[in-house]
Amino acid sequence: MNATRQPIEYADASAEVRSVYDDIMATRNTDWVNNYWKVLAHHPPSLRRMWENAKQVMAPGALDPLTKELIYIAVSVTNGCGYCIASHAAGARNKGMSPDQYSELVAIIGLANETNRHAVALDLQIDAAFR
Amino acid sequence: MNATRQPIEYADASAEVRSVYDDIMATRNTDWVNNYWKVLAHHPPSLRRMWENAKQVMAPGALDPLTKELIYIAVSVTNGCGYCIASHAAGARNKGMSPDQYSELVAIIGLANETNRHAVALDLQIDAAFR
Amino acid sequence: MNATRQPIEYADASAEVRSVYDDIMATRNTDWVNNYWKVLAHHPPSLRRMWENAKQVMAPGALDPLTKELIYIAVSVTNGCGYCIASHAAGARNKGMSPDQYSELVAIIGLANETNRHAVALDLQIDAAFR
Amino acid sequence: MNATRQPIEYADASAEVRSVYDDIMATRNTDWVNNYWKVLAHHPPSLRRMWENAKQVMAPGALDPLTKELIYIAVSVTNGCGYCIASHAAGARNKGMSPDQYSELVAIIGLANETNRHAVALDLQIDAAFR
Amino acid sequence: MNATRQPIEYADASAEVRSVYDDIMATRNTDWVNNYWKVLAHHPPSLRRMWENAKQVMAPGALDPLTKELIYIAVSVTNGCGYCIASHAAGARNKGMSPDQYSELVAIIGLANETNRHAVALDLQIDAAFR
Amino acid sequence: MNATRQPIEYADASAEVRSVYDDIMATRNTDWVNNYWKVLAHHPPSLRRMWENAKQVMAPGALDPLTKELIYIAVSVTNGCGYCIASHAAGARNKGMSPDQYSELVAIIGLANETNRHAVALDLQIDAAFR
Repeated sequence: MNATRQPIEYADASAEVRSVYDDIMATRNTDWVNNYWKVLAHHPPSLRRMWENAKQVMAPGALDPLTKELIYIAVSVTNGCGYCIASHAAGARNKGMSPDQYSELVAIIGLANETNRHAVALDLQIDAAFR
Repeated sequence: MNATRQPIEYADASAEVRSVYDDIMATRNTDWVNNYWKVLAHHPPSLRRMWENAKQVMAPGALDPLTKELIYIAVSVTNGCGYCIASHAAGARNKGMSPDQYSELVAIIGLANETNRHAVALDLQIDAAFR
Repeated sequence: MNATRQPIEYADASAEVRSVYDDIMATRNTDWVNNYWKVLAHHPPSLRRMWENAKQVMAPGALDPLTKELIYIAVSVTNGCGYCIASHAAGARNKGMSPDQYSELVAIIGLANETNRHAVALDLQIDAAFR
Repeated sequence: MNATRQPIEYADASAEVRSVYDDIMATRNTDWVNNYWKVLAHHPPSLRRMWENAKQVMAPGALDPLTKELIYIAVSVTNGCGYCIASHAAGARNKGMSPDQYSELVAIIGLANETNRHAVALDLQIDAAFR
Repeated sequence: MNATRQPIEYADASAEVRSVYDDIMATRNTDWVNNYWKVLAHHPPSLRRMWENAKQVMAPGALDPLTKELIYIAVSVTNGCGYCIASHAAGARNKGMSPDQYSELVAIIGLANETNRHAVALDLQIDAAFR
Repeated sequence: MNATRQPIEYADASAEVRSVYDDIMATRNTDWVNNYWKVLAHHPPSLRRMWENAKQVMAPGALDPLTKELIYIAVSVTNGCGYCIASHAAGARNKGMSPDQYSELVAIIGLANETNRHAVALDLQIDAAFR
């Protein structure tokens, strides 16, 4: 596991891996690939599978791309994943997130985590109007 | 604790509690108060404090109200809080969330939880470009 | 698994299981055993092991028994475990927890969950004075 | 977001931020402010709001200040928040926590996390006596 | 969201949805589909995507199918997901899980959750031999 | 707490602590002890108790030792515990885990975390066949 955790650079990658890297860069309109994909590349089926998932789920749809990134960050903060916060905060900034928007996002994440625990501690029953 | 978990209805509430209920209904433009507040009302300092927090954090600002609800739901799903999901999904629908938006929200929440664990399992180092 | 999840009552228990039940009732000075132990009893090594753990950890020591229950509840609320909250809230009430103490406990649990997420989202560095 | 994560020192702070810092130092009877507040200060409404919350919730009340810190640590450990553990363990030591008390706290946190998962895995039904 | 949460039965499903149901039943050699898929079916792209993921990840490979189910349960218990535990415990029993294996699984899950918190509380540094 | 977090080396350990270290090394057939035990050693009752737990739970039984390590890792990744992942991945490699097995383990952990959140978000009802 130790050795396999080194990121696989494009120059060292198999044709199968390179084809995914190429699609990542083309889809994102960038000339580099971040460590998530370069470490996942040790297992090409996982690399390809996860990229297909990310491409489908994060594409513009009924929700716009910035909103999707904010949701991603909310999950990542709640799970305490530093890498994920860093990568998706960068993605959100690229899509126009302002410092005030980030501050409000953090405030909501915090408040929701607080009230989630209150609801559990107080064994709240769901109001009829919410069903 | 058992007895205190019954929601306190308006008719049975103290003047202090009623003043918060009144502000909740006025701010939300509704004629009822949901269980979260009615159970929290057993401890008026918590009731007032939490309402002041919610009013400030969830007000329109750099992020619009629907986006704020989606973020709230993302946290609540990640924490597995059924009451919180029900109440904020209702809030999101009131603010215009469509079924497709909810489906995409669920997809993003799931994907983020998946990749969060990958990042931890693979001990990913944050890319220089993200710092 | 289905069948094995039924609680094993004293009358139906093996001598090995009864000896643990006896010790639970004697230690707690009660005449009944709660479901946690009666379901765990399907695997006697786990039953005995967990009871030895609980007896050692929850005994009066440098921390008093009520404080220990409050800590237990704080963990259980954060993990969203309804059974655990119900059982240890009962334990705490037996040890003297007042309604106001419970309200303050819930407030702290909520606040800590909130600020925990802030700390992660803001990537806080530990102050030198805290090390 | 990058720039905004630098702590804002007193000398560089606005009057609005300074007034909160002043209140933190006066309330705690210290001459410094920890990073949580100095990073939160990039969004003054959050700084003020969170300080008002912390001041109210952590003040002596039905629970004593050391017990409140222990509860805070229990949540922070369960959530895996290193900063929060460091800051509140320092707070607890200031309020008299002994090494043995910390060891017992850690033991309870661990045990509660263990039994919480047992309760979920075994789908325990809440005993009538606990309701 | 309310209406969309009803499971979509085969008789009411579109051709697109039926083709996924057909593949689920053929792959699993059963004549029914569980609620996860029938509720996900309200968003066909999610239904198809998740089924492709599950089929690839849970297929026999370097790990055998029963071991894969045990891992799935370990995650689901740690996250407190009752539906997931029920469905994957059924899957594990179908693949030969014995009651004693389930009891040991539960014991490991509990122990790991306990020691995970100890590691965090004690701020353990990774031993050189583990790197 | 600061001082007590230094690992206690064998040469500096009390007879009580050494006897546990001796048993750890004999049971594992190694000549060293990892940091978890050396830090826990500041509280000998916890050291002895946890070692008795680990020895019993992780011993070969109805599940083989490698499967037990994989389950341990699944929990540790879901909880985001870096130390625990490092130590149990080392244990798993010692027991024969291949790189492909680790890749599949990571894939299952990720998928389970994803579907766990779907199940919660969609409020899935447990199928009759699973009960």
